[in-house]
Amino acid sequence: MGDDIRLIDAEVLRAQLVGVLDHHGVPAEQAAIVADSLVEADLRGVDSHGCNLLALYVARMQAGDLRAVTEVSTVRDDGSTVLLDGGLGFGQVAGRIAIDLAIERARVHGLAAVAVRESTHLGALAYYTMRAAEAGLIALAFQNGPTIVPPFGGLTQIFSTNPFSYALPTLDEPVVVYDIATTTVAGNKVILAKKRGDATIPEGWANDEDGNPTTDTQRASPMHLQWFGGHKGYGIALLVEAMAGALARSCFGRTERSAATAAGRDRVAKGYVFITIDPSRFSLPGSGAGSGDGSGDGSAADDYRRDIDTLVRDLHDCEPSVGSAGVLVPGELEHRRRAQRLAEGIPLSAGLVAELDLLASAAGLRALGS
Amino acid sequence: MGDDIRLIDAEVLRAQLVGVLDHHGVPAEQAAIVADSLVEADLRGVDSHGCNLLALYVARMQAGDLRAVTEVSTVRDDGSTVLLDGGLGFGQVAGRIAIDLAIERARVHGLAAVAVRESTHLGALAYYTMRAAEAGLIALAFQNGPTIVPPFGGLTQIFSTNPFSYALPTLDEPVVVYDIATTTVAGNKVILAKKRGDATIPEGWANDEDGNPTTDTQRASPMHLQWFGGHKGYGIALLVEAMAGALARSCFGRTERSAATAAGRDRVAKGYVFITIDPSRFSLPGSGAGSGDGSGDGSAADDYRRDIDTLVRDLHDCEPSVGSAGVLVPGELEHRRRAQRLAEGIPLSAGLVAELDLLASAAGLRALGS
Repeated sequence: MGDDIRLIDAEVLRAQLVGVLDHHGVPAEQAAIVADSLVEADLRGVDSHGCNLLALYVARMQAGDLRAVTEVSTVRDDGSTVLLDGGLGFGQVAGRIAIDLAIERARVHGLAAVAVRESTHLGALAYYTMRAAEAGLIALAFQNGPTIVPPFGGLTQIFSTNPFSYALPTLDEPVVVYDIATTTVAGNKVILAKKRGDATIPEGWANDEDGNPTTDTQRASPMHLQWFGGHKGYGIALLVEAMAGALARSCFGRTERSAATAAGRDRVAKGYVFITIDPSRFSLPGSGAGSGDGSGDGSAADDYRRDIDTLVRDLHDCEPSVGSAGVLVPGELEHRRRAQRLAEGIPLSAGLVAELDLLASAAGLRALGS
Repeated sequence: MGDDIRLIDAEVLRAQLVGVLDHHGVPAEQAAIVADSLVEADLRGVDSHGCNLLALYVARMQAGDLRAVTEVSTVRDDGSTVLLDGGLGFGQVAGRIAIDLAIERARVHGLAAVAVRESTHLGALAYYTMRAAEAGLIALAFQNGPTIVPPFGGLTQIFSTNPFSYALPTLDEPVVVYDIATTTVAGNKVILAKKRGDATIPEGWANDEDGNPTTDTQRASPMHLQWFGGHKGYGIALLVEAMAGALARSCFGRTERSAATAAGRDRVAKGYVFITIDPSRFSLPGSGAGSGDGSGDGSAADDYRRDIDTLVRDLHDCEPSVGSAGVLVPGELEHRRRAQRLAEGIPLSAGLVAELDLLASAAGLRALGS
C-alpha cells in the first residue's frame, strides 16, 4: 500500500461522517443512515459511492439543493403499490423507508412495488436490495438521474448512467447482489485516464464527440459513454428510465417534474423504484423442510434460499476458463473486501482524508486518526 | 431478393402451421395460439422464433418430449402470485394462459407475478410482454432452458441463453418491446459463420474452448458464447436463472426438476416468470386528463402511457451520431418489419419452404403457395 493511502477504521469513519452531517443540521437518526450507506459502500470497495460523497452532499446542502432534514410523505398507498415523495432530502433516508416498506408489503401481498419521486442521490443501490435479500426477499431496484448519457446511436444526452440492482436471498451463502451502471463505466473513469495521459482506454467504454466508438483516450468523451453491451445495455437503461423516471412520476428524459430548479445535466432530483418478491409464495405444496405444508412459513421460504445456495455452488464448481481464478457470483468480491476492510481498515487516499478533515474541521471535529 | 427466397402471405402460413399441428393431435384452439406466436415472430423479423421451429416441435411430439395436448394446472394461486404447471405441453399455450392471468391479476392487485414450471419452448418472449403492454401494463419476462452456456470466467455449461424481455404501454406510439438473449448472439450465428468460412466473427460473440475471447471463426466455440457486455450481461443471465429456474420451481443450473427425462444440454423443460405492473397505481392524485381523481381509471392510466410516448419522442428527437440513421427504441425495427411483411408477405428461404412442405405433405396438406 503506497504512502498516500491511510487505513481508517470503519467505526471511526462512521462517527466522523455522522459528526459532519450533524453539524449541517441532519437529524441524528438520518445522519446514521446516510453514514451507514457511505461506510458500507467503502467497506465493500465501491469507493465511488462511499465517503468521498460527503463533500458533495455538504456543498449541496449549502447551495440549498439538498434539504438537511428529510421529510418523506406518502403520495399514494394502495397496499402492494406505494408512491412516496422524498422531499428533496437525503436519498438514503427516503430509500431506507422505501425498501423497508417494500419488504413489509411483499410479506403481506407476495410482491410489492414502492416508487419514490423527488428524492436525491441514493448512494449504492446494493445497500437497499441487500437489505431486502437479507430479509428473505428477491429485490430489484431502478434509479435514474441527470441527463448525461446519449441513447445508443445518438449524440443528445438524455439518460443518466441509470443503475440497476438486484439481490437474491440465500441460506448459508452470502446474498447474491448485483449493482451496475448501465453504461460500461462511469464518466470519471474516462476523465481519470485523460488526466493520467493513458494512450488508450478499453474498447466499449466511450465514443468520441461524433458518437464513434474509440479507444483513443484523448478523443473519448465522458459525455458520450457507451452502454454495456451496446444496444442491449441501452435497452436496460431505457427500462430504468421507464421505471425510475416515468413510473415514479419523477423527471425522465427531457421532462422535468421536480420542485428543484436544477435541471437536465444538473438535475438533482432522482426517482427510483424497488420491487420485492416473497419467494415463499412459490413453494410447492408439501415442500419446506420440517414444515411440509408449503404454507409460506419460514421453512417453505427456505426452499428458494436453498436453491440460490445450490446455484452459487454450481457456479463455484464450474471449471474456470484458462487464466480465470474461478467463476464469481455478483457481490462476491465485495463481500470479501468487506470482511478484509472491517478487519484491517478502509484504505482512503491522502487527498480524500484531507478533504474529510477539512469538513471535520469546519464542523469543529478532530481530524481522522488524530 | 434472391431466387432462393419465397414471399409467403402471413394468413397462408398461419393456416399451414395450424394444419400440420392439427394433424399431430394439437387441439384447434391450442394450434391457433402456437401458430400465432410463430407467425408473429416471422412478421416481426425474428426468424429464429418463427415457422422454422415447426419441424422441431413435430420431432419433439413424435419423440414424446412434447405433449400434443397442453394441460395447464394450477400449483398455487395466492392472488397476486400464481404458480402454474405447463404439463410439458406447448410453451405457447401455457404462456398465453400465464400472461393473461398476469394481466388480470395486476389489474386487481396493482402488480402480479405468474410463474410456470414444466413448460417447454415459449417462442419469442416479446409475444407475451407485448400482449400485456397492449393491455396497458408494464411487463417483464424471464425464461431459462438447457445448460449450453458457461458462466463468465468458466468453461462448464450451466445456463441457457436466458432471454429477458420487457414491454411498456404507450398511447399513440407503438408499444416499446425489448426481447434479448443475454448472450451476445445465439450459438447458430457462430455455426453459420463457420459454415460460410468467414475468417473472423465480431468481438464479443464467443470464446475459444479455453474460454479466451476470440474473433477467429474457426477457434470460436458455439458452446462458449459470451454474455452481452461481459460480466454485466452474465449478471442478468443469473437473474433470469434465479427467476425462471429457481422461483418457478423449475430446472436451474445443474438441478433437474422435471418429469421429462431429457436433461442438461438436452433439457426440454423450461421455466418462466411474468411480472406485470399496473402503472395507473402510480398516478398522482388529481392527474389524468378528463378524470381528475387519480383513481386508477382509464384516464389516470393514460398518464404513464403519455410519458412513454414522450420518452419515445425524446429519443427520436436526439441528434443521431455520425453514420447512424437515428435513435431507435426497442421493438421499433420489428414493428416496421411487421407492417412491411403483412403487406408484402414473409420472406422464407427455399430450404425452409421445402421443410414446411414436407411436414405439410405428411399431414395430407398441399404445398405452400401451390
